[in-house]
Amino acid sequence: MTDPLDTPLDTTSDRRPGGRTARIRAQVLDAVRAELTESGHEGLTMEAVATRAGVHRATVYRRWRDVGGLIVDVIDAAGEMGWRPPDTGSLRGDLTALNQEIQESLVVQPSFALALMAASFHSEQAARAQTRLWTDRYAQCEILVERAVARGELPARHTDARGLLIAATAPLYHQLVLLRADPDPRLPERAAKAAVLAAAGGAFSVPREEGE
Amino acid sequence: MTDPLDTPLDTTSDRRPGGRTARIRAQVLDAVRAELTESGHEGLTMEAVATRAGVHRATVYRRWRDVGGLIVDVIDAAGEMGWRPPDTGSLRGDLTALNQEIQESLVVQPSFALALMAASFHSEQAARAQTRLWTDRYAQCEILVERAVARGELPARHTDARGLLIAATAPLYHQLVLLRADPDPRLPERAAKAAVLAAAGGAFSVPREEGE
Repeated sequence: MTDPLDTPLDTTSDRRPGGRTARIRAQVLDAVRAELTESGHEGLTMEAVATRAGVHRATVYRRWRDVGGLIVDVIDAAGEMGWRPPDTGSLRGDLTALNQEIQESLVVQPSFALALMAASFHSEQAARAQTRLWTDRYAQCEILVERAVARGELPARHTDARGLLIAATAPLYHQLVLLRADPDPRLPERAAKAAVLAAAGGAFSVPREEGE
Repeated sequence: MTDPLDTPLDTTSDRRPGGRTARIRAQVLDAVRAELTESGHEGLTMEAVATRAGVHRATVYRRWRDVGGLIVDVIDAAGEMGWRPPDTGSLRGDLTALNQEIQESLVVQPSFALALMAASFHSEQAARAQTRLWTDRYAQCEILVERAVARGELPARHTDARGLLIAATAPLYHQLVLLRADPDPRLPERAAKAAVLAAAGGAFSVPREEGE
């Protein structure tokens, strides 16, 4: 099957940002998200994605090669979206807002976030892409800790920001993803409060030399 | 294929605890653990388990029906093992020991614990069995909190023991299972310290009426 994108004209438009290439990627990734949330990783096929996206199968195969390629790109696309950490004026408020966002993404039916995690358990590629995305998100959130130190909410000593952020958010993932507990509307605020109290007690203070 | 266990004699011995039935179950579950850790959930087949266990395939099919049945039984068997929570004399010491146990089970190569979690992502049966096991383990660990209250390490107010235990252990699972970070030898003690500081600050104190 010949692909219209292989014509010189389309090759040119390929290079135009927001051109046909970007449009086709958006259609395909929307289809991947829909298929993943509806049928999960096991149900994901190149054919179903191409059909749903209304894109040539040949194009999908050439650009994404396989299902693993589609999942990696959908995770990378999530990282490209302009996500910004909350800014409520207090560390406890920020961490609570962050936890509420996490809880919502995990309890929504069907959950795209859960589908991605499940996928990362049987695709090494997907696992690496998800680790990249998470590393970026936690790095973005370190500003919450910097602001808290600036506001005098945390000891001025060097603080292990990532350690604090993980302590604050881990209970949400543990309860909802691994323990499969029913969502507790009070958990986002409670987990945030616990992390702030621990931080105030110096739980995440590290010696300068180790922190640098 | 007729199964020797169907003869009257064996039916009698079936009823004897630690009899042939128990012996065959032990052989089969040992084989399931070995197959799971070596080839993961995807690689698990009734045939491979029967061959490895040296047990009639017909017996394995009749008693466990399918791969899901094998996984559920291997998880249930883990719950039957006489596991006892640590008792080091301090809450921080107990939680650190618990976290070290968790970290070891997750970083050992290959990890049976990780294989079970992966399995629970595509088997509803396995997910339920794992949730049961985890619920039991956290319930067993509530004694750590009761001892800490008795020793005066925690506020005498009613404490959400499960909430405290989850706050203490969740960072291990989050880092090693979901974020796939390299194991940090200091994390078991740090996560324990953070949970104890949060608890001392009243993070897990709940009003009596809510706690009862």
